[in-house]
Amino acid sequence: MFAELFENVRQKTPLIHCITNYVTVNDCANMLLACGGSPIMADDPEDAVEITAICGGLNINIGTLNRRTIPAMLAAGKRANELGHPVVLDPVGAGASTLRTETAVRLLKEVKLAVIRGNISEIKTLALGSGTTKGVDADVADRVTEENLGGAVTFAKVFARRAGAVVAITGAIDLVTDGERTFCIRNGRPEMASITGTGCQLSALTAAFVTANPDRPLEAAAAAMCAMGLCGEIAYKRMTGLDGNSSYRNYIIDAMYRLTPAALEEGANYEMR
Amino acid sequence: MFAELFENVRQKTPLIHCITNYVTVNDCANMLLACGGSPIMADDPEDAVEITAICGGLNINIGTLNRRTIPAMLAAGKRANELGHPVVLDPVGAGASTLRTETAVRLLKEVKLAVIRGNISEIKTLALGSGTTKGVDADVADRVTEENLGGAVTFAKVFARRAGAVVAITGAIDLVTDGERTFCIRNGRPEMASITGTGCQLSALTAAFVTANPDRPLEAAAAAMCAMGLCGEIAYKRMTGLDGNSSYRNYIIDAMYRLTPAALEEGANYEMR
Amino acid sequence: MFAELFENVRQKTPLIHCITNYVTVNDCANMLLACGGSPIMADDPEDAVEITAICGGLNINIGTLNRRTIPAMLAAGKRANELGHPVVLDPVGAGASTLRTETAVRLLKEVKLAVIRGNISEIKTLALGSGTTKGVDADVADRVTEENLGGAVTFAKVFARRAGAVVAITGAIDLVTDGERTFCIRNGRPEMASITGTGCQLSALTAAFVTANPDRPLEAAAAAMCAMGLCGEIAYKRMTGLDGNSSYRNYIIDAMYRLTPAALEEGANYEMR
Repeated sequence: MFAELFENVRQKTPLIHCITNYVTVNDCANMLLACGGSPIMADDPEDAVEITAICGGLNINIGTLNRRTIPAMLAAGKRANELGHPVVLDPVGAGASTLRTETAVRLLKEVKLAVIRGNISEIKTLALGSGTTKGVDADVADRVTEENLGGAVTFAKVFARRAGAVVAITGAIDLVTDGERTFCIRNGRPEMASITGTGCQLSALTAAFVTANPDRPLEAAAAAMCAMGLCGEIAYKRMTGLDGNSSYRNYIIDAMYRLTPAALEEGANYEMR
Repeated sequence: MFAELFENVRQKTPLIHCITNYVTVNDCANMLLACGGSPIMADDPEDAVEITAICGGLNINIGTLNRRTIPAMLAAGKRANELGHPVVLDPVGAGASTLRTETAVRLLKEVKLAVIRGNISEIKTLALGSGTTKGVDADVADRVTEENLGGAVTFAKVFARRAGAVVAITGAIDLVTDGERTFCIRNGRPEMASITGTGCQLSALTAAFVTANPDRPLEAAAAAMCAMGLCGEIAYKRMTGLDGNSSYRNYIIDAMYRLTPAALEEGANYEMR
Repeated sequence: MFAELFENVRQKTPLIHCITNYVTVNDCANMLLACGGSPIMADDPEDAVEITAICGGLNINIGTLNRRTIPAMLAAGKRANELGHPVVLDPVGAGASTLRTETAVRLLKEVKLAVIRGNISEIKTLALGSGTTKGVDADVADRVTEENLGGAVTFAKVFARRAGAVVAITGAIDLVTDGERTFCIRNGRPEMASITGTGCQLSALTAAFVTANPDRPLEAAAAAMCAMGLCGEIAYKRMTGLDGNSSYRNYIIDAMYRLTPAALEEGANYEMR
């Protein structure tokens, strides 16, 4: 199934509008190109609305939000809704500041989201409407482990139903659920956390997968999650004793560029709950 | 001839002010350093005008333009004109939104440009004052091929004469013309399109070449175009079966760092029309 | 001593808030992760103040400052002061424009700085309250050499005492002083200047070292300086005849990722003055 979903990305070249932070934006663009999509970025409110209209999907990432870009996010999100384009929200740092939490909550309320992708602390903040986050990483106390997996799945399902969106929580085990079915994914490497923006790249990738497979957002998001993790595994095998997080970043994007639909199908490591 | 033009870049270390998008700005800076130039970026209107004055050339790229940076582009462009500094315009996404089209048209009208560099769709938009663009890539229908080359050359010449600028259209075949003579360049690799920002880097590079060779903007722009394409060819030869677009990006900048004036002279692949 | 200071960075994972330019921000984030720290970026004034509060240290870099981010820098700096968090200032381009010079001078006046890190031209501008800088690089006339080292040390000491901060001047020879003792550091490679943002990365790194070692800002800043230079040396050894400044950038961050406290201790090359 994942092979077909990925094949659609490669065939359709989905054009993805990213309103995203300036820290990792270049990597998001190259990741989109690597998977077979095409990126465009705009953040002036007026421009963002028009650019949204020529794209197939929208990826909103609040990583370096400001008073100028927040209206762009809202307006672009609403325009995407009108056009029936899928919208992915990455609530970077929700829980770390009032502006981030409020903006994420507001986007959740005012924009119909296809997928919400974040770490467990960010998603908990969204679910509760408030929270605390250790910067842009998940709190250790929150982390999804084999021991608390059952509870985490239940939490994710309940939130997905309430949000009316696919919820994707990334960590050592990734959870992707539409409130009914849940993919528990065990692809990836812990070393991916030592690269800035692997989460941001994954959100952009998810937008490409969901845009190319509009009728199957759950499976498309899960496929993107597996693809990213698998590329992290493939890239890790390439590392020499001299390579560190900067080369690892390049190798992961390279791996996505080289990944075939068949290799994704074979390498995807998940169970349904 | 190209050897001498490149030698001038290496000797003079032209300081280039880039008002450019935040997606590819880091690559533009490293490309400028790789060719022998020196980058500086400012986008606050007041700061941009002053920074323009201490530089030798100005590169304006409208990729992530906004209401704050547009006045900076106009003011810096006018200041560069007063000082006789060459200005390069990269109308990223002109035709994709009203703000981009209008800003590009306004810059064309209010600022004397040395070189306008874009893909065929962007340049057509500028020439017509309106247009449609598939995001930041050229429309397939617009693309310059061996079949429509004659017509494209005529179009470019007419627009160059009207704009009073060197016009550089990049694609499978690059065209660089001052309205009289036209370089048709066949350097480069199609895989360069899978990297974000090769066009942006080329515009920054063009600014360095034109600034170091102020009396020969046509030849300088053509030399920059050949140099970029040649580095794409050299870098491609270095690619292994594991490398993808991220490593390719690094290898192209690396190739520019290593490129010698003699190698540019030898590797440049063009005909005059 | 440096081994212990670096070990503290690795153990404590200092969370560093960077208000920094968009040219080199991705490299700053990856450098922070490579050394064992954790980055977060915010530049909306309100958001920046709150994000500052959840971090351990603040790194202010004025590289692409604008009328929106300057208040964020001031407000975040004052909040960090209230909380007793160390603040590092990187006055990129001070002397190159009025806005940069005035902003740097104002930050120096209104915020208690732990470390000021810049090139000799930028630091002279700060010390004099005015100055001229060739873009973002030091003026040749200003450069610290073996011949003028004595005078440069005296200048740095006087300014450090007046500023009440550790002053770190980077160049062929790096100087780090608290006004009493001065580290003269001879790590590094001249080729590091061909990469955009090695200075920015160093400032972020310095913030991590000082935050993890709050009682020893002089030694911590000197350790960061040696670590960066040493990584430049290690990465240079890895360069092949095809590698240029883009791969060199990656290799330096990789080298920091792999650097051990013991290797820093052994490779640090400095004398006290």
